[in-house]
Amino acid sequence: MTLSDYLAARRRDIDAALDRLLPPETTSPEIIHRAMRYSVFAGGKRLRPILCMEAARAVADQTPDLERVACSLELVHTYSLIHDDLPALDDDDFRRGRPSCHKQFGEAMAILAGDALLTLAFQVLSEAEAVPLDRRARVVGELAYAAGTVEGMIAGQVRDLEGEGQPPTADLLERIHRAKTGALLAASARMGAIAAGASEAQLEALTRYGRHVGLAFQIVDDLLDVEQPSAELGKTAGKDARQGKITFPAVYGLAESHRMAEEEAARAGEALEGMDERAARLRELAEFVVRRTR
Amino acid sequence: MTLSDYLAARRRDIDAALDRLLPPETTSPEIIHRAMRYSVFAGGKRLRPILCMEAARAVADQTPDLERVACSLELVHTYSLIHDDLPALDDDDFRRGRPSCHKQFGEAMAILAGDALLTLAFQVLSEAEAVPLDRRARVVGELAYAAGTVEGMIAGQVRDLEGEGQPPTADLLERIHRAKTGALLAASARMGAIAAGASEAQLEALTRYGRHVGLAFQIVDDLLDVEQPSAELGKTAGKDARQGKITFPAVYGLAESHRMAEEEAARAGEALEGMDERAARLRELAEFVVRRTR
Repeated sequence: MTLSDYLAARRRDIDAALDRLLPPETTSPEIIHRAMRYSVFAGGKRLRPILCMEAARAVADQTPDLERVACSLELVHTYSLIHDDLPALDDDDFRRGRPSCHKQFGEAMAILAGDALLTLAFQVLSEAEAVPLDRRARVVGELAYAAGTVEGMIAGQVRDLEGEGQPPTADLLERIHRAKTGALLAASARMGAIAAGASEAQLEALTRYGRHVGLAFQIVDDLLDVEQPSAELGKTAGKDARQGKITFPAVYGLAESHRMAEEEAARAGEALEGMDERAARLRELAEFVVRRTR
Repeated sequence: MTLSDYLAARRRDIDAALDRLLPPETTSPEIIHRAMRYSVFAGGKRLRPILCMEAARAVADQTPDLERVACSLELVHTYSLIHDDLPALDDDDFRRGRPSCHKQFGEAMAILAGDALLTLAFQVLSEAEAVPLDRRARVVGELAYAAGTVEGMIAGQVRDLEGEGQPPTADLLERIHRAKTGALLAASARMGAIAAGASEAQLEALTRYGRHVGLAFQIVDDLLDVEQPSAELGKTAGKDARQGKITFPAVYGLAESHRMAEEEAARAGEALEGMDERAARLRELAEFVVRRTR
């Protein structure tokens, strides 16, 4: 099966699982469940759940059912997009080619829908019966840390906001992105590995893999914002520059940013050198992240 | 020891625990940790952590260290206050006698500080080493459910927003408050009981207790909004009526609301009838909730 077919099949699995785990739109109060589903089912790539599941497959022939662990990552990712798009933060009216959550449902409901997805992520994890209790407690901690304020997503978001209009330095750029997108992508690989019972060496390799993939992903994200028209990007293009965001193209230029993305993908592959053929999809995924066009 | 001295001592314990569990203000990015601490240490009553710990003491002579379980409730409660005060929601500039989080730190930081406290609550719980793993998974699920969209805090907040300007009916009022404040207060008692290894019968009694205390608490909250000046209340008084909120005084009038609060406190006491003298503080707490003046 080609990687593209494989990813499409995995996406369908994840979408079906998310559909089972989210309250139906008919559950009262309906408006909040509509808002949550609107943003979750907006056509995401499901990269984090796929990374999680592939990391588990890379270390174990038989993995426990990881549907809930994988979906918790997508729920947290979606919450972060909804809150990032709010007028008080990045103020983006479009996301994945549609009005962003607050444009569709109003600001109050978008704030609550984000809160609700974050909350649901932990509920879904706590009830992941297939995952042994000790590993379950660990993945809850991993998710919270990766989403948090010390080295996690919120730390990155705060640094990003503080950095607007500041001189774009390589150091600040790295500190923003290691936390803002890197932490959750690394946690995706780590949580899958932990839930599948990875050894310390495997966990360490997959963490390095996740970090490099995360950085490659972010560089490409910044490049797409510059190089793609809004219609294909599904969100407002060129926005980073107008907001004075510190991006890879702003610090390193386009050509060097492209080279860096390739290098990070290569390093991600190198991190897997000690692992066997079960890590083949992860190797392909690292290349896919650099080739993507949205 | 009088109840008042006892509660003051418990509050100091909880405050010390919260101080240990929250990242220091000197941890980068400092601004988010300052905002989190600003709201957590604004002089809260710590009713939820105290309920949690007393519920545990009511069912076990020796309870595991419940500091983390108790504090997770206060973190979730504080997150909900920060987000409720935002301009897009209740738009309140004051909280506990000080500018609300978004007035002090700006809207972006208030949104993120709320997100961060919710996230931290689950991290703190996941690392509650003193609580056996099976009980730990259960309390994580309880907290998420009580904070969630189906019968939890967010469901109540959504119904509250939807209800603004609607005719105040007893049915809608009950549905709002059972979820908005009742769920987390009942969860406070439940989580303490579960973590301490309560029997099903004890858990059921403490759940009923928590529900009645929660309702008593909410009725008194609505009454204080009408009857207390802003200075003593620490937040903007009379706001419910101006926003067309559905409140107990609006539906039942002042005298009947006072009577109902007393009745709910009495029912909370009755829920404990099968329990022994270890539940004495819980009985006192139910009365305290009705007598409070802020």
